[in-house]
Amino acid sequence: MLPKGFKVGGIRSGLSKKEGKKDLALFISDTPANVAGMFTQSVAKAAPVLVDIERLHKNKKFFGVIANSGCANACTGTKGKKAAEDMCSSVEKAFNIMPGSILCASTGIIGQYLNISKIKFESSIKLLKNSIGVSLKNENDAVLATMTTDTVVKKVSKRIKVKNSEIKIWGCAKGVGMIHPNLQGLHATMLSFILTDAEIDNKLLQKILGNSVEKSFNCVSVDGDTSTNDTVIVLANGQSGAGKLSKIDLENFIKTFDGLTLDLAKSMAKDGEGATKFIEIEVKNAKTKRDAKLIASTVATSPLFKTAMFGADANWGRVLAAAGRAGVNFDLRKVDIYIGGIHTFRNGFALNFSEKAAKKSLLKKEIKVVIDLKTGKETSNYYTCDFSYEYVKINGNYRS
Amino acid sequence: MLPKGFKVGGIRSGLSKKEGKKDLALFISDTPANVAGMFTQSVAKAAPVLVDIERLHKNKKFFGVIANSGCANACTGTKGKKAAEDMCSSVEKAFNIMPGSILCASTGIIGQYLNISKIKFESSIKLLKNSIGVSLKNENDAVLATMTTDTVVKKVSKRIKVKNSEIKIWGCAKGVGMIHPNLQGLHATMLSFILTDAEIDNKLLQKILGNSVEKSFNCVSVDGDTSTNDTVIVLANGQSGAGKLSKIDLENFIKTFDGLTLDLAKSMAKDGEGATKFIEIEVKNAKTKRDAKLIASTVATSPLFKTAMFGADANWGRVLAAAGRAGVNFDLRKVDIYIGGIHTFRNGFALNFSEKAAKKSLLKKEIKVVIDLKTGKETSNYYTCDFSYEYVKINGNYRS
Repeated sequence: MLPKGFKVGGIRSGLSKKEGKKDLALFISDTPANVAGMFTQSVAKAAPVLVDIERLHKNKKFFGVIANSGCANACTGTKGKKAAEDMCSSVEKAFNIMPGSILCASTGIIGQYLNISKIKFESSIKLLKNSIGVSLKNENDAVLATMTTDTVVKKVSKRIKVKNSEIKIWGCAKGVGMIHPNLQGLHATMLSFILTDAEIDNKLLQKILGNSVEKSFNCVSVDGDTSTNDTVIVLANGQSGAGKLSKIDLENFIKTFDGLTLDLAKSMAKDGEGATKFIEIEVKNAKTKRDAKLIASTVATSPLFKTAMFGADANWGRVLAAAGRAGVNFDLRKVDIYIGGIHTFRNGFALNFSEKAAKKSLLKKEIKVVIDLKTGKETSNYYTCDFSYEYVKINGNYRS
Repeated sequence: MLPKGFKVGGIRSGLSKKEGKKDLALFISDTPANVAGMFTQSVAKAAPVLVDIERLHKNKKFFGVIANSGCANACTGTKGKKAAEDMCSSVEKAFNIMPGSILCASTGIIGQYLNISKIKFESSIKLLKNSIGVSLKNENDAVLATMTTDTVVKKVSKRIKVKNSEIKIWGCAKGVGMIHPNLQGLHATMLSFILTDAEIDNKLLQKILGNSVEKSFNCVSVDGDTSTNDTVIVLANGQSGAGKLSKIDLENFIKTFDGLTLDLAKSMAKDGEGATKFIEIEVKNAKTKRDAKLIASTVATSPLFKTAMFGADANWGRVLAAAGRAGVNFDLRKVDIYIGGIHTFRNGFALNFSEKAAKKSLLKKEIKVVIDLKTGKETSNYYTCDFSYEYVKINGNYRS
């Protein structure tokens, strides 16, 4: 269920080549909202990312986000930037709201222009304006319109009781390939839009988002690749009626917000291109958080590890080889490795385990790998998927 | 043709599970040789690597290298180290040479003990001693015995005229998966043994090897993964009769040596697991050498780029996305990208090119990708292969 005062929707404008596929989404508040955003760190930032960054520097309040699939509007120079700005201003005109108060996001093929005249953009926005709403169908339409090779709609909503009112947080995410976010703002063709009716100022909202992303979207990798278009935007319109949050309520909000981004991040790994399995890597008892995350991400992005998981092979040697090259110093003689609940390696030595039991465990849809370094107290969890024939098939044929 | 004074050979001892596969190789000089070595930087160094590093610190002269496939002898603790030492001393005894003068290397499955009694190691060494020689068959047997999933014998020999004599350099390499060397000494299950009858002291030989590896083995990636066992060893026994090299002859030697390691490095990428194509990435006109190499290696290890090459898709967007996230700052508006000779991207913009011509060019067995940054004078070349169904198949079934 959407937070108070928000409407969303999605329609087909013709930007996507896939017949009948919805490709234009709008997420909009009926009152100005506070905002936080994080974007790709790529040198090759796409036009919509550049436009959003400018707007976030210039303005404090925003009404919403217009997003399209079918064209990334990346590497399109000043002409592309103008198109992204036109996309925003078409919405601002249609809703009669202040210029500069709409943000934008695009996903799809890199290097193609967002050809606005061709798709009769203004009439598309009119259509979109008439189709938005608060129903489950509106939610699904909006998310569907942001999807590319995604196979499932990824959205999560949460509620928090605050005194006599209720705060809602709703979020969606798109992204199954070129996924390896690094949002300081991020990396990866991932888009995520989070709406809440809580009352939170921009500075605090940005801080909450930054901390949350570090433990969620920045801990997901599908293929170690990174996009030009990654965007996470939070809008907080304050309409819940709960007013300014007390310390306890704020803590509760942050916890809930973190739960929502983590759910979305996991759903991205689960829907990874060609994925047959969801894999969680936990590196525990590391000296520092950075060490733990570095090892976890190195294992999560190792093609040899990921193909072994596809083959249901409890190949702890590949886990260890990846950990060993992560650039972190650790004592091999203390290391334990568990794969799918099977203790495969203890204090630097291979254990005898039942290959049959391991195979059975690794044929499951969700696998947890634990690397226990026993040298400190820090833990990092990372989310990924296996590497399958289907991944090669999808990506060997993407453009054509 | 082998350099003077060297004999090599390979036999089957039973270490490899593949029926009839040769698995024990010897590279030996009949007089003590100078030596240089580089090894994996992994925290999880295999037993033979630890033994070699110790021996290189202790001794100056070596006779040769004993190497096995079928078992990596990695993560095997003190028991594994003892086995690696026993492997060396069996050779020293059989040839009646000084203790500590043989180096060792292993490749194969991680975590299994090198079970010496089981394969009757001493009798295997006796057999090996009787089978070594200088023929082409001996060369092939030796290289075959070091191979795992390699499909071709990778060896190169070169000659240099020096006054009235001739110096020979012979080298072999093994390694097609878990290949992403980083030899300061290195990373990856790659083994390379280089023999020469030139007279060069250890210090200079190590310097020549270090510089050479940086431009060859350290510029190859099959899967971005890294091994516990990487080893490159050079033996120089001085038997050519050319004596100490003049400055010009030394320059010629270094040039030839670099050519040999580059040939071996390229042959590894060509034989990459599941590879259908050899790919060279050239990043040119970068501000620094480091920038050029960082971008080249990021593109070379991008699964999205590698699957596009498998699909013969001139997807410059993926080249650019990988370059953009390499952690190097560059001006997108100056960048040109050529794929398989097709100019796809100029000064930050997509070019119209014939998809038909591009497809035809990318169906070839060797593809060169050029990224011209136009911001400096430094160039880096990196060698890799495409990512195919076969890669997933090979690695989804490796242990079983």
